[in-house]
Amino acid sequence: MGKEKSSFQLKVPKGTKDWEGKDMVIRDKIFASITDVFKRHGAVTIDTPVFELKEILSGKYGEDSKLIYDLADQGGELCSLRYDLTVPFARWLAMNSSIQNIKRYHIAKVYRRDQPAMTKGRMREFYQCDFDIAGTYDPMLPDAEIIRITCEIFQSLGWEGRYTIKINHRKILDGIFQVCGVPTDKLRAISSAVDKLDKSPWAEVRREMTEDKGLDAEVAERIGEYVTLKGGKELLERLLKDEKLSANESAKAGLADMDLLFTYLQTFDVLDKISFDMSLARGLDYYTGVIYEVVTEGSAPQTSEGQALQSAGKKESKPKKHASNIDGEEDRSNDPSVGVGSVAAGGRYDNLVSMFSGKQQIPCVGISFGVDRIFSITKQRLAADASAAAIRTNEVDVYVMAFGGKGFDGLLPQRMAVAKRLWDAGVKAEFSWKVKPKLPQQFKAAEVNGVPFAIILGDEELAAGKCKIKEMGLAEGHPEKDGVLIEMENLEAEVLKRIGRPAGVTDSLAEGVNGMSLEEAAKTEPKTS
Amino acid sequence: MGKEKSSFQLKVPKGTKDWEGKDMVIRDKIFASITDVFKRHGAVTIDTPVFELKEILSGKYGEDSKLIYDLADQGGELCSLRYDLTVPFARWLAMNSSIQNIKRYHIAKVYRRDQPAMTKGRMREFYQCDFDIAGTYDPMLPDAEIIRITCEIFQSLGWEGRYTIKINHRKILDGIFQVCGVPTDKLRAISSAVDKLDKSPWAEVRREMTEDKGLDAEVAERIGEYVTLKGGKELLERLLKDEKLSANESAKAGLADMDLLFTYLQTFDVLDKISFDMSLARGLDYYTGVIYEVVTEGSAPQTSEGQALQSAGKKESKPKKHASNIDGEEDRSNDPSVGVGSVAAGGRYDNLVSMFSGKQQIPCVGISFGVDRIFSITKQRLAADASAAAIRTNEVDVYVMAFGGKGFDGLLPQRMAVAKRLWDAGVKAEFSWKVKPKLPQQFKAAEVNGVPFAIILGDEELAAGKCKIKEMGLAEGHPEKDGVLIEMENLEAEVLKRIGRPAGVTDSLAEGVNGMSLEEAAKTEPKTS
Repeated sequence: MGKEKSSFQLKVPKGTKDWEGKDMVIRDKIFASITDVFKRHGAVTIDTPVFELKEILSGKYGEDSKLIYDLADQGGELCSLRYDLTVPFARWLAMNSSIQNIKRYHIAKVYRRDQPAMTKGRMREFYQCDFDIAGTYDPMLPDAEIIRITCEIFQSLGWEGRYTIKINHRKILDGIFQVCGVPTDKLRAISSAVDKLDKSPWAEVRREMTEDKGLDAEVAERIGEYVTLKGGKELLERLLKDEKLSANESAKAGLADMDLLFTYLQTFDVLDKISFDMSLARGLDYYTGVIYEVVTEGSAPQTSEGQALQSAGKKESKPKKHASNIDGEEDRSNDPSVGVGSVAAGGRYDNLVSMFSGKQQIPCVGISFGVDRIFSITKQRLAADASAAAIRTNEVDVYVMAFGGKGFDGLLPQRMAVAKRLWDAGVKAEFSWKVKPKLPQQFKAAEVNGVPFAIILGDEELAAGKCKIKEMGLAEGHPEKDGVLIEMENLEAEVLKRIGRPAGVTDSLAEGVNGMSLEEAAKTEPKTS
Repeated sequence: MGKEKSSFQLKVPKGTKDWEGKDMVIRDKIFASITDVFKRHGAVTIDTPVFELKEILSGKYGEDSKLIYDLADQGGELCSLRYDLTVPFARWLAMNSSIQNIKRYHIAKVYRRDQPAMTKGRMREFYQCDFDIAGTYDPMLPDAEIIRITCEIFQSLGWEGRYTIKINHRKILDGIFQVCGVPTDKLRAISSAVDKLDKSPWAEVRREMTEDKGLDAEVAERIGEYVTLKGGKELLERLLKDEKLSANESAKAGLADMDLLFTYLQTFDVLDKISFDMSLARGLDYYTGVIYEVVTEGSAPQTSEGQALQSAGKKESKPKKHASNIDGEEDRSNDPSVGVGSVAAGGRYDNLVSMFSGKQQIPCVGISFGVDRIFSITKQRLAADASAAAIRTNEVDVYVMAFGGKGFDGLLPQRMAVAKRLWDAGVKAEFSWKVKPKLPQQFKAAEVNGVPFAIILGDEELAAGKCKIKEMGLAEGHPEKDGVLIEMENLEAEVLKRIGRPAGVTDSLAEGVNGMSLEEAAKTEPKTS
């Protein structure tokens, strides 16, 4: 579509796309599933502007700052499109000092002038879905609830048994680096090298540490003994007994946190979803505590639990079919939204808000779901399911049609009146916008959209105060294949019975503000004249 | 907030705002109400990028093009933030030539470098909510359905009896101008002057026509005889008998359309919401047929039906309290989203798509709801309603708390386990993130958020396999004021019974793709290994 050679290039900007049709339906279902879980845990949402003052974003993203989209200087303030949802959230917290704690979610688009790789799901405009808990609480309780929320979300998406949450702790990593003798000025570089262990073998990471980053070979060996470890509670217990780590303040504090977190995760019944992965480092500087990343089948080379990653990076004998767009991903370890091959990632960041406010410090912990990637995987899984081939793009319950013989006038007013009655009853209904539509055209319109029921009007039936209701798609020979006659006066009741919804309740009226619909609420206003 | 004098200015860009708290809840309810109506009529949604190629927007907005936000030239394509949702929709239709008809809605932010007037609801970043029908159908049927949809939306918002849909037709206006003798080169200028009749008296509009725009005084007088008319079906019938108009091709075609539309609106039972207002002209050039604008109490000076507007523009004796932010609005008649004081506006535009595709022409008719303005009015109406003072910002059903005497350890694992069971049952639940919370703190947390029920754990009750469930806010002396004991094993059932939801059904699982939840859908995938 970018190859047209006209004076007018009809396309969307590079790295962006239009969402439409079944993709839109699937995406909205994913958003709804995720939002439901957030609400189940008492979260609220906020909505920040799509652009921020340029200086708000400055100095937050390191060398990735070059990927920020600026608005043109057309006079007035200099602004940039938001790069993520975390910095605007921290800015909002700093601006609203009366708010000392909040659980907020935010699903919105963010913008990065990256080299797009559409087939890999890397776009310049893409959705992030962030959940964060801000406030001072007893240790690890919000952290544990975030892990629990993450598990509920992947369960509601149908990923049960197909994902793993890798967990580590910044203080443990710092402690390990100190214990192994990494010079302070090399800490970030070594941490970044360790973070590549999910897709490079240890030998390659060790080479990078020693040859590229000038680390002493013995120090690298000592680091390797720790960071290639992964496992569950037994690994944690082993590290708690490690005398070198216990003697280090940072490692000791991190391990105590992890011990408490594991206890809570056990109570929340999600410990089996966790892999304590000591190679997980996360790129962003602002993490201060527990860090995590969610990987799914095929999102990273698989190794058995506890095994060192020496063999990782080799090609798997048979690449998994539904992981084609996440395998082979380039290094995005500096990407705060998703790690390499991960579908969600986050951690604790206790100092970010104070970068804005200076005065107050609000501890935060959060997670960002890579919803575009979750969408791609969900779509592929649905595509593999034959019954999902017929995902409907609209939700119409009833198609109102008419037919007749010679002299048939189309029964337009009658079709309109029936549609009106159905709408009034909260039924989703359509009819042909032709004065005299042909019956096959009307059936086709209903079939194309997978409409489950048809109301069929005819002169004779109407004269007798009746019409036909027909369930679409019934097999040949089914007793109701040709529909059943109903009384016109029972129209709404007959339809509602079949579509399984209570009479007189439309979606919009069923819930409102405080359980009161907006309609009711507005009516209660005392009249001012 | 823009007045802080620090080295770092902590604010959002001019003309933008953060949405949060109760505002966010009300806004989301409005969006949900509107979306439900769209879906009831079989609409689908599409989502286009927030920025378009600059050339896509060029030449679409006349002199308002100066209000378009451009992105900085950082190499690559030149882009601009979208100015409305109509042009991106037309661009999308032109790009997807296989789509010959669609009913689509789109709720999203648009951007205008206007002088912001926050108290009047004029922002630089604001929401539009558009519904459009594209495709070739029999005359006036989609047009009638859009009016019907508009009425359903305002009914669902609780505005019944408080709004009027002003309707006119471009071809009738053109015909009137021709019949009255307006020179072709003055047509747009005169049309624009007529559009001001909703807030200026005829004498002022006539002065503008003759003095500012050089129209012959007699021609102006003749125009005045028509454009000051408003009314219902009787006005239409009067015009149908007007010999001068009947002799004009354009007026004749427009009046025939209106006649058909009125018939359809009668069938849809919404004719009483309509005012045929011959002063309505709408600023945008691209309208080709019926045009409409929705006004609500106080959104424009009120005149009785059919009365000429000579007296309009005078101050009303007592301004309506809840209309303070829409009275006194500046001229925004060129604003494609909302007219002067209107809360929704639109019309038929049959030629816009061909501006992009050149080849094909897809007739369109649509409406744009000024949701920010609808929000302001709804909020004021809710504020006038005492019971709405307690709008909840989250939706938590149950707060899980614990209390005990000396030696009380906080029962944290027990509170967590209860919360977990409730979440598993789809119940929205919270508990204190303190190891040993005080009972008053827990009650306060529940009360602040208006949580309807508390589960109260105590050592003694737990030892007997029981806990207490308490409905919050019961009056002193109510027999269940202190809660009732329930069996721990019946926890979920007892809670679900009280919050009125069926057991085991969470929101996210209740509906999914094709009525199948994403969870079920994903499980049906044939295993690929």
